[in-house]
Amino acid sequence: MNFRLIANILGYIMLVEAGFMLFPLAVALYYGEGTWTAFLYSACICAAAGWLSLRVPLKRRRMHRREGYLAVAAAWLVLGLLGALPYIFTDAIPNYIDAVFETISGLTTTGSTILTEIEHLPRSVLFWRSLTQWMGGMGVLVLFLALMPKLGAGAVYLMRAESPGPIKSKLVPKVGETAKILYGIYTGLTVLEIIALRLAGMRWFDAINHAFTTLATGGFSVKNTSIAAYSASPAILWIITVFTFLAGVNFSLVFWIIRGHIKDVLRNSELRLYTAVIAAATLLISLNLCIQSGLPLGESVGGAAFQVVTIMTTTGYATKDFALWPAFSQTILVILMFAGGCAGSTAGGFKISRIQILVKSLRRDLQRISHPNHVSVITVDGQMVEEHVVASAQAYTVAYLLILLSGTLVVSWDNLGFTESFVAALTCLSNVGPGLGLLGPMANFAGLSLFSKAVLSLLMLLGRLEIMPILMLMNPGSWKD
Amino acid sequence: MNFRLIANILGYIMLVEAGFMLFPLAVALYYGEGTWTAFLYSACICAAAGWLSLRVPLKRRRMHRREGYLAVAAAWLVLGLLGALPYIFTDAIPNYIDAVFETISGLTTTGSTILTEIEHLPRSVLFWRSLTQWMGGMGVLVLFLALMPKLGAGAVYLMRAESPGPIKSKLVPKVGETAKILYGIYTGLTVLEIIALRLAGMRWFDAINHAFTTLATGGFSVKNTSIAAYSASPAILWIITVFTFLAGVNFSLVFWIIRGHIKDVLRNSELRLYTAVIAAATLLISLNLCIQSGLPLGESVGGAAFQVVTIMTTTGYATKDFALWPAFSQTILVILMFAGGCAGSTAGGFKISRIQILVKSLRRDLQRISHPNHVSVITVDGQMVEEHVVASAQAYTVAYLLILLSGTLVVSWDNLGFTESFVAALTCLSNVGPGLGLLGPMANFAGLSLFSKAVLSLLMLLGRLEIMPILMLMNPGSWKD
Repeated sequence: MNFRLIANILGYIMLVEAGFMLFPLAVALYYGEGTWTAFLYSACICAAAGWLSLRVPLKRRRMHRREGYLAVAAAWLVLGLLGALPYIFTDAIPNYIDAVFETISGLTTTGSTILTEIEHLPRSVLFWRSLTQWMGGMGVLVLFLALMPKLGAGAVYLMRAESPGPIKSKLVPKVGETAKILYGIYTGLTVLEIIALRLAGMRWFDAINHAFTTLATGGFSVKNTSIAAYSASPAILWIITVFTFLAGVNFSLVFWIIRGHIKDVLRNSELRLYTAVIAAATLLISLNLCIQSGLPLGESVGGAAFQVVTIMTTTGYATKDFALWPAFSQTILVILMFAGGCAGSTAGGFKISRIQILVKSLRRDLQRISHPNHVSVITVDGQMVEEHVVASAQAYTVAYLLILLSGTLVVSWDNLGFTESFVAALTCLSNVGPGLGLLGPMANFAGLSLFSKAVLSLLMLLGRLEIMPILMLMNPGSWKD
Repeated sequence: MNFRLIANILGYIMLVEAGFMLFPLAVALYYGEGTWTAFLYSACICAAAGWLSLRVPLKRRRMHRREGYLAVAAAWLVLGLLGALPYIFTDAIPNYIDAVFETISGLTTTGSTILTEIEHLPRSVLFWRSLTQWMGGMGVLVLFLALMPKLGAGAVYLMRAESPGPIKSKLVPKVGETAKILYGIYTGLTVLEIIALRLAGMRWFDAINHAFTTLATGGFSVKNTSIAAYSASPAILWIITVFTFLAGVNFSLVFWIIRGHIKDVLRNSELRLYTAVIAAATLLISLNLCIQSGLPLGESVGGAAFQVVTIMTTTGYATKDFALWPAFSQTILVILMFAGGCAGSTAGGFKISRIQILVKSLRRDLQRISHPNHVSVITVDGQMVEEHVVASAQAYTVAYLLILLSGTLVVSWDNLGFTESFVAALTCLSNVGPGLGLLGPMANFAGLSLFSKAVLSLLMLLGRLEIMPILMLMNPGSWKD
C-alpha cells in the first residue's frame, strides 16, 4: 500500500476544504458577522494540515485500486473531522461529536440534523452547512480531479470509489475531462435553480442555500420547518420538486441531452423506472391519504409528489409531518429510502440501476431451475452487464442488510422503539435524512446518545461511499500488500 | 414439464395427509368428542382427491429439478388448502381464509395464530393443529420418500426443494435411506421430549402436543398463554429450552453423534456459531433487562435464554410478553428472526450456515480490492463451497429483502404501524410466529384483513421452502420446457 501517495491526496483534499471555507468567511464579512474569524482559523488549520501532508515525499506515483479506495475513505473521514471546526469555533454546536455528525450528515448529503433551532444561527454558519452538502453531492475528489487532471491512470480509481452506482462509466476518455463536465452540469443546474427560486419570490440567501441542498439531494434547510415555511407559494414547492427530481437523475443523461441525444435519453430504462416508481408511489400515497385520512384527492397529490420525490432522491426536505400519515404511506416512504435515485446522480440508497440488475439476476436464477445448462447474460439497455457487477450488486445487498441491522441494534439502546431505531439506521445508511416517529421530519437527532450519533455518522459514510471503501478503512488487515 | 408426474406426486401427498387425519380422528374417539366425523369427512375428501390424482396416467417417469421444485411447491399449497378442512367441518374456524392461514402457519412451523381462545377448542382440533406442525417440520415429501423409496434418481430434487439450508447433503448414498434416518431421529427426539415433559409433571395430552411443536420449531401451544402457563415449573421450561435448542441443530449432527463421531460434531463451525449467538444474545438481553428495566440479573437470564432460543430457532413460544421489553432487547429478537437456526434442522430464517457463507464472501470481496487477480475459494469446515452456492445465498438475500418489503407494504394497509407491519412480514417469512406490538407474543393475527392473512400465508410458504419453489409456482412462464 502506497501510504505516501494517500497522504499526498489527503493533503490536496484538505487544501480544497480550506478553499471552500473562504466562502462562508466572505458571507460573514458581507453580513458583518463576527464569525469570520472562526472560518479564518478553520481554513488556516485545514491549509496547514494539508501543507504538512503534501510534504510527505513520494517514492512511487503509481496508484492501484486499493490506494484509490483507501484514499477516498480516509479523505471523507478527514473532511468530516476538519469540517466540524467552524461549528465549534462559532459555538453553533459546542460538542465535537455533534459537530462531526452535522458535518458528515452534510457532506454525505444525508441531512439529518442535531440542531433544534436553526433560524437564530449566523448566516455564515447556515451557509457553511448548506455548502458541505453541495461539496459532498458531486464529490470532493471528483472536484479535485477536475482541478488537477495530472494524476495519471490511477485517477479512475478515485472516481470509481467516490461515484455512486453499480457501473461507473466515463463520459469522455479522460477522467479529468469527465469530472469537469460533471461539475459543469452540477454548477449550471444549481445556478438555474437559484434564479428560478429568486424569481418565485425567495430571498437570495435562501435561494442559494436551498439550491445547494436540492442539487446535492441533501435536504438541509435554513428554516426550522424546512420547506413548509414556503408552503404559501406553490411555485417554490414545484421548482424544488422539479430540481430535486433532476438531481436524482444520472448526470450523464443531462450531458447527452445537452449533446442533443434526447431520444436515447428518453429510452433509458433506469430513467423510465425511476419516473414510474415516483409516479406509482405518488398515486398510492394520494389514494391512501384520500381513503384512510379523508383528504381530498386534489390536495393530497401535491404533498404526496413532493414527499415521494424528496425521499426517493434521498433529499429529505419536508412540507408535511409524514410521521403522522397512515402506516401504508409511511411504509412506501421507507421502501423508497432503500431504493434511492439513479446511479451517477447525487442521490443515495441502492440506486435504481442496481435494483434493475438484482431483479434481472433473480429472474435468471429462476430460469436456471428449468434450464440448468442454459447460459444467459444480463443486459440493461442492450448492454451486457458483466458477471462481477452482478456479483457485487448482490454482495452490496448482503452488506447493506448486515450494516442496517447492526446500526439498528446500536441505536435501539437509546430505547426509542423499533421503528425509530430501524428507520434512523436506514435513513442514515441511505443518506435520506428524516426518520419516523420521534426522529421524524419535524423533529431531529439531538436526543440520541453520542455513541449512537458516532455510529450513525459512520453509517452515513458507508452509505455515501457505497460501503466497500469504508469497510476497507475499518479493516487494517486489508491494507497489506 | 412433466405435469403428469407432478399430479402423481400430489396424489401420494394427499394420501399421506389423509393418513395423518386419522390420528386426530382417534383422539376424538378416545375423548368422546363429536368432532370425529369432521376428521372422517376431511380424510375421505383428501383420499378421494389423492386417488383421482394418482389415476393420471404417466407417460415418462423421469424427473428433473424443475418438476421437483414445482411438485414440492404445489404439494405444500394443496396440503394447506386441504388441511384447513377439519377447522371448517368442526366449526373451530368458520372462515376458510382464516382456516388456511392457521393450517399453513402450522405446516410451515410458523406458529402465528388467528385463534383468540384455544383452551375451549375440542382436543382433537388442538391435536390436529399441533400435528400439522410436526408434519411440516421434517417435511411431508421427506416422509413420502422414506415411505416410498422407489421414486428413482429424481427423488433427490424433491428432497433438495423441501430441505432447508444452502447446501444439501445426503447422509447415506440413498435418498430414501437418508429420509428414513432423518425421520427416525425426529421421532426419537419427539418421544424423548414427551417422556421428559410427562416426568416433569405435564399431562400426557399437553406433553405430546408440546413435543410435536417443539421438535418442529413450530410454537403452537394448547394454552392461551403459551408456555407461560407452566411458569411455576422451571423443569418444564428448561426441558423445552433444551429440546428447542436441539431442534435448531442440523439433524445430520445428531446422526453423527449416534454414530460416535462426537469430536467431529463439536468442531462443526455452524453448531459453534449457533451456540455462540444464542449465548451472546442471552447475555445482552439479560444485561439490558437488568440495566434498563431494573430486573435482578438472576431472574432475567432464564427468561432471556428461553426467549432467545425460541425466537432464534423460529419456534416462537412465549413465557413473557417481550413486546413490553426495552427496544434493545426487542431489536435483538428481530435480528434473531432473520438469522434462524442451522441448515438441515426444522428451523426457518436465513440459517446460520448461509450467513457464514455470506460473511465469508463479503470478506473475500474486500480482499479482492487489494488483490484483484488473487483467486480464492470459500471454505466451511475445510470443505470448499462451490461458487453457485455462494451466488444463490446472495440471490436469496436479495429475494428475501424484496419479499419482506413487499409483505410489509401489504400488511401496512391495515394501518397497524410500521413496526407491526414489518415484523409481521418478517415473522411469517422466517417462520417464527409471534410479532411485536399488537401482533406480539400474547396477542394474535385475528385483527388483520383477509387479504393480509392470504399474503402472509404466501410469505410463510416462501420462507419454509426457501423462496425459489414458490416463485416458480407463481410464475407460469417458468413451467415451459
